[in-house]
Amino acid sequence: MKPKLTLKQIAKELEVSISTVSKALRDSPEIGEDTKLKIKAFAKLYNYKPNNIALSLKNRKTKTIGIIIPEIVHHFFTTVISGVEHVANEKGYNVLVCLSDNSFDKEVLNMEMLANGSTDGFIISLAKETMQKGDYHHLQEAINQGMPLVLFDRAVDEIICDKVIIDDIIGAGKATQHLIDIGCKNIGLISTVDYVSVGKLRTEGYLKTLQKNNFSINEANILKIEGMEYSDEEIQKFIIDKDLDGIFAVNEHFAISAIKAVLASGKKVPDDVSVIGFTDGELSKLFIPSLTVVSQHGTRMGEESARLLIEKLERNDLEDENYKTIIVETGLVKRDSTK
Amino acid sequence: MKPKLTLKQIAKELEVSISTVSKALRDSPEIGEDTKLKIKAFAKLYNYKPNNIALSLKNRKTKTIGIIIPEIVHHFFTTVISGVEHVANEKGYNVLVCLSDNSFDKEVLNMEMLANGSTDGFIISLAKETMQKGDYHHLQEAINQGMPLVLFDRAVDEIICDKVIIDDIIGAGKATQHLIDIGCKNIGLISTVDYVSVGKLRTEGYLKTLQKNNFSINEANILKIEGMEYSDEEIQKFIIDKDLDGIFAVNEHFAISAIKAVLASGKKVPDDVSVIGFTDGELSKLFIPSLTVVSQHGTRMGEESARLLIEKLERNDLEDENYKTIIVETGLVKRDSTK
Repeated sequence: MKPKLTLKQIAKELEVSISTVSKALRDSPEIGEDTKLKIKAFAKLYNYKPNNIALSLKNRKTKTIGIIIPEIVHHFFTTVISGVEHVANEKGYNVLVCLSDNSFDKEVLNMEMLANGSTDGFIISLAKETMQKGDYHHLQEAINQGMPLVLFDRAVDEIICDKVIIDDIIGAGKATQHLIDIGCKNIGLISTVDYVSVGKLRTEGYLKTLQKNNFSINEANILKIEGMEYSDEEIQKFIIDKDLDGIFAVNEHFAISAIKAVLASGKKVPDDVSVIGFTDGELSKLFIPSLTVVSQHGTRMGEESARLLIEKLERNDLEDENYKTIIVETGLVKRDSTK
Repeated sequence: MKPKLTLKQIAKELEVSISTVSKALRDSPEIGEDTKLKIKAFAKLYNYKPNNIALSLKNRKTKTIGIIIPEIVHHFFTTVISGVEHVANEKGYNVLVCLSDNSFDKEVLNMEMLANGSTDGFIISLAKETMQKGDYHHLQEAINQGMPLVLFDRAVDEIICDKVIIDDIIGAGKATQHLIDIGCKNIGLISTVDYVSVGKLRTEGYLKTLQKNNFSINEANILKIEGMEYSDEEIQKFIIDKDLDGIFAVNEHFAISAIKAVLASGKKVPDDVSVIGFTDGELSKLFIPSLTVVSQHGTRMGEESARLLIEKLERNDLEDENYKTIIVETGLVKRDSTK
C-alpha cells in the first residue's frame, strides 16, 4: 500500500524544481552533472520509473485519449472538449481531461500521469507558463518515445507534431478591416501579453491591417493584459480617456468588459463605439447588444484534433513523421455591437 | 498489440445493452440465466476482466481522483471542477475528468475506465438518463468493492455514500419568497423535467412557498423543459400569452432566455417583470440587466466533495460506513433583474 514515488515528491525531497528532476532523469545537458547524479541516485534508491511512456507503448491501445487544457472555466476550451468527445466516441475512444491551470509544473505532472498507461496519445493546448518559459522538453520526450501528440490553439513552432490552429492573423485582420470598413478612424486593441501565441498573432493581424489601410499605429491604443484578475479595471482605465470609435478584443470576456466600460463612460454601443470580440461563446449571442465576433469554431478544432490523433494511432507506425497542421478558418459573425 | 476487450465490445458482439453485460458479469438477478451464461462464457473466452475495481484496490494510492460530470459546456460544472482541483492539488492528488454526456452507458463505461487502475475514488454528478432509468448498479458495485464515491448536485437517495448537495428546496423558496416580497402576484416557474433531482426539488420549493403565502397554484404557470435544444422557443411561447410579473428559472440559461422573451414581448425587466435565476455563472454578472440569482456555490461544492473523498481515502478503512451529506447553503444575490 506504499504510495508510488512521483516526480513531485522527488523534487520536494531534493528541494529542486519538477522541471529539474524531469530533465535530470532524461540526462539533459541543461542540468549540472552533480545535480543529475544526485537526482538519479535518489530515483534509483526509491525505484522511481522515469515517466512510463515506453512502458505504455507496449500496452498500447488503451483506446483512451488524454486532453490537457490550461483552463476549464472558459467556454472556448469546453467547446473543444465537446468536439474531441464527439469524434472520439464515434471511433470507440474514451476521453480523459486534465487541467494545467496554466502552470508548467502541472502540465508536466499531468503528462506523466496520463502517459503512465492510461492513454494512447495527447491533445494539448499549452499552459501560459510553458510558453513563457519556452520549455517544451516534456512534449519532445513524448514524441521521441512514439506517443502521438496534437497541439491545438496555443501551439508553438519549436515542437514538430500535428497541430490544429485557427488563422489568427487573418481572423484579427477581418475584425480590424470590418471596423475600418464601417468608418472607424481610431481603433483600439485589447489583447493578451505577447508570450501567449494567439495574443501575439492577433496583435499582428491588427497591426498589419491598420498599415495596409495607411492608418498610423498608436501604441497607446493597444492594451496587453497579463491575467484575468484585474482585467475589468484595466480595460475601464484604458477606455475612459481615449477617443476610440472601434475596439477589437481578442476574447469574449475582454469584449464584454469593453462594452461595459464604454457604456459606463456615457457613450453608446454601437452608435459611438463599435466592438468586435474573438470567440464563439454563448455570452456573445445572449448579451445585449449581441456581439459581433470573429468565430473560433472550438467544436471543429476539437473534432479535427481528435481525427488527426486517432488517424496516427490507428496507422500505428511509430516511424511516421508526416505531420499535418490544420488551419480552421475563422469567420466574421455580424451582430449588434458594430454599426 | 491486441486491443483489450471492453464492456462495449461484448455488448455489441452479443447484441445486448452495456447495462445487461455489466449486470450479467456481476450475477445480477435482473438478468435471465441463459443470457448470463452466454455473456459469462463469451467474457471468459476473450479473457475479459470484469471491471477491475478489485484489482485497483490492491494498487490503491494512484493519488488520482476521477470526476464524472454530465456536461462540460456548463458553467456550474466547470466551477465544481475548479473547486475539486484546488483541494486535490493542495493535498497532492491529481484529477481526471470524464464526461457522461448525460448518457447512462457512457457513465458506466467511464467508471469502468477510471476504476481500471487509474483512480482511487470518484466524484460524480449523475447523468440525466441514469436518473431517468433509476439504474445505479454501477455505483453500488464500486461502493461494494470499497471504491469510495462522492455524489454531488445530482445525488439520489438510493445510493448510500458521501454527498454534497445544496439546499435546493430552501434556495428555490428564497427566490420565490423574494418575488412575493417585492410585490409579484403572478409568479411563473421555468424548471427541468422532474426526473432531474434538482429540478424536482426546486419545483417543490417554489410550490411550498406559494402555498405558505396563500397563493393559488396555477399549473399553467409552470414550464418543465426536457432538453436545451428548443428551450429558447419553449420559453418564448410560455411567456408570450401570460401575464406574469415574476419569473423564477432553475438555471442561468433559462433565466436569460426568459428576460429576452419578456423584452421581445414589449415589456420591461424589472419594471414589468422581475426575473430570478439559479446559478453563479459569469453570464449573470455580465448580462444587462445583471441577474438576481440564488447562488449555487459550485466551487465550494467541488472543494467539499474533494475533502470528503480524500478524507475517506486517507482513512483507508474499507469497512468504514460512516457517510456524510454536506449541504452547501444557497444565498440570494440581488442585482438588477428584480425590482
